[in-house]
Amino acid sequence: MNDWRNNLRKIEPYVPGEQSKDKNIVKLNANENPYPPSPKAIKAIKEFNAESLRLYPHANATPLKAAIAEYYGVETENVFLGNGSDDVIALAFQAFFNGEKPIAYPDITYSFYPVWCRLFGIPCKTYPLDENFRINAEDYKEENGGVILPNPNAPTSICEGEGFIRKLMDYNRDSVVIIDEAYVDFGGYSCVSLTKEYENLLVTGTFSKSRSLAGLRIGFAIGSKALISVLEAVKNSYNSYTVDALSIAAGIASIKDGKYFKETISKIINTRARLTNELKALGFEVLDSSANFVFATRKDRNMKEMFEYLKTKKVFIRYFNLPRIDNYVRITVGTDEEIDILLKEIKNYLGR
Amino acid sequence: MNDWRNNLRKIEPYVPGEQSKDKNIVKLNANENPYPPSPKAIKAIKEFNAESLRLYPHANATPLKAAIAEYYGVETENVFLGNGSDDVIALAFQAFFNGEKPIAYPDITYSFYPVWCRLFGIPCKTYPLDENFRINAEDYKEENGGVILPNPNAPTSICEGEGFIRKLMDYNRDSVVIIDEAYVDFGGYSCVSLTKEYENLLVTGTFSKSRSLAGLRIGFAIGSKALISVLEAVKNSYNSYTVDALSIAAGIASIKDGKYFKETISKIINTRARLTNELKALGFEVLDSSANFVFATRKDRNMKEMFEYLKTKKVFIRYFNLPRIDNYVRITVGTDEEIDILLKEIKNYLGR
Repeated sequence: MNDWRNNLRKIEPYVPGEQSKDKNIVKLNANENPYPPSPKAIKAIKEFNAESLRLYPHANATPLKAAIAEYYGVETENVFLGNGSDDVIALAFQAFFNGEKPIAYPDITYSFYPVWCRLFGIPCKTYPLDENFRINAEDYKEENGGVILPNPNAPTSICEGEGFIRKLMDYNRDSVVIIDEAYVDFGGYSCVSLTKEYENLLVTGTFSKSRSLAGLRIGFAIGSKALISVLEAVKNSYNSYTVDALSIAAGIASIKDGKYFKETISKIINTRARLTNELKALGFEVLDSSANFVFATRKDRNMKEMFEYLKTKKVFIRYFNLPRIDNYVRITVGTDEEIDILLKEIKNYLGR
Repeated sequence: MNDWRNNLRKIEPYVPGEQSKDKNIVKLNANENPYPPSPKAIKAIKEFNAESLRLYPHANATPLKAAIAEYYGVETENVFLGNGSDDVIALAFQAFFNGEKPIAYPDITYSFYPVWCRLFGIPCKTYPLDENFRINAEDYKEENGGVILPNPNAPTSICEGEGFIRKLMDYNRDSVVIIDEAYVDFGGYSCVSLTKEYENLLVTGTFSKSRSLAGLRIGFAIGSKALISVLEAVKNSYNSYTVDALSIAAGIASIKDGKYFKETISKIINTRARLTNELKALGFEVLDSSANFVFATRKDRNMKEMFEYLKTKKVFIRYFNLPRIDNYVRITVGTDEEIDILLKEIKNYLGR
């Protein structure tokens, strides 16, 4: 017997991380920026001619592309925009990973890569991080249908440098390599300038972390015109108008406000140093972070239990019940006041 | 020799319709609403706590779903949200059209259906509209992998009634049927209430036309929990946060402002009647519209030439160089002032 249910997509529902709208929570679980967006971005929203929302936004969001291009010293044609960097990377998987060979990424990395592979039917192969949670460039010498990795990696927080990226590109002349730089602005090494040298290198970024605009959904990619034109073709076959008119206006104001950007980044880097030192003083091992979060463990204590204890104290951090990292916690760098509360509760937990 | 270009997606770039930011243009080419969004939606944007944009939006946009559910008399679990209805329909293609048999839609219809079939590798078959541009329900008796059609249809503007939809559902007990109601609020028949009877019926809608929020990108779908849960699973495997925080706030304010909605709809319906009558008086055949546009021809004149003439006069309408409709024009119902200018220029063209 036929049934319409037969043609439904069989897919394991991906469950987004928990959210709480409780204002009293110390929310250090989603790598959100503790500081508000640039006052200029807020002004752009308040002063936006909302009557014009009756019109479709610019299909190519060119004014925001131009502002991003100017910031990174590339041409507008080297910039792609999407509805958050998840949208950009999902489109890039469809645009670039169409071979028979598996695409390659680390065993410990952003949790969406395997989800997209399942969704689009892309074969994949993972390569284990070394014992210090570093990515071994030599692993990616093996033939593959593409490479993707975040740099800094998540949730490890570790950033690899130019030498690593150049090796990766030398080993992968026949694949598209995507470097996901969602966290790079917090002191990491950005390989955007290498996109001029390597036509098969795509770098993705987001306004959600360093620019405090997670609520608006702005992601971008920078690469050769050869790559960007294919991304545009796939995007324009999917949804022409992905970036809304308010996001375009606020995004432009944000990227032009270099002063505020540097100030907030600097505050987060300072708080990260303090958090790292205090955790170490409490007996934790803390990986060397170039991101707006730290990845930490105390091998003699149960991190899942600590994570759950902190939740009862309304301090939300992140725990991953995954091989190799199931005794680690990921802590977003909040304000100094939030970190004070976190450290107090960690001390309470350890002293119980 | 291997090359990274081998794995790039081979896809014909879809080119979005032309846009102009020239304020002096009479823009009747994109089916945009001539009236601004509800003042309550504008207020929601102006008063939005923009500092909170540092946080991710609600992953399931539940507050907006609840407002839409209340408006349509369904449960929140019957509502799906996306980044414009193109996003919703593209996800629905991936969620529901996974069979071997071709999906079915009319030969003259929304131009994105074949684009999505190509993108996702879905086989498709078109069924010709009859000589009056009506959809023949009997055509859809043939076995298929799914059915999609807009009601009112685009660009014909014609709406089919409850009897047609019930026939369609009776003939298609083994397929998911998607009715795309982007234009239904302008006096068409909506089958939303039938989703309670037919578990395999999905109805999609948008805030871009009747709610004047094209710039914000809000699309939705209403259907059984069986359908919505699969759509959610696919969406959460693609991009968890598709509807941004400002769109959620403005969308809620818009759907709760029934008074303004009815007033603007009523103005558009009145202007449509006047436009239809005046075009008929000028010798045009005008299809019976239930949408915010009319589809018209003068068989003794060249409509492509008229379209191009109007463009030189800064009056933008839409022309499709497609079989069967290549001597028709699609005209968005603007304000009465815009229609005055349009009619004056059409008279000038005809009198040349």
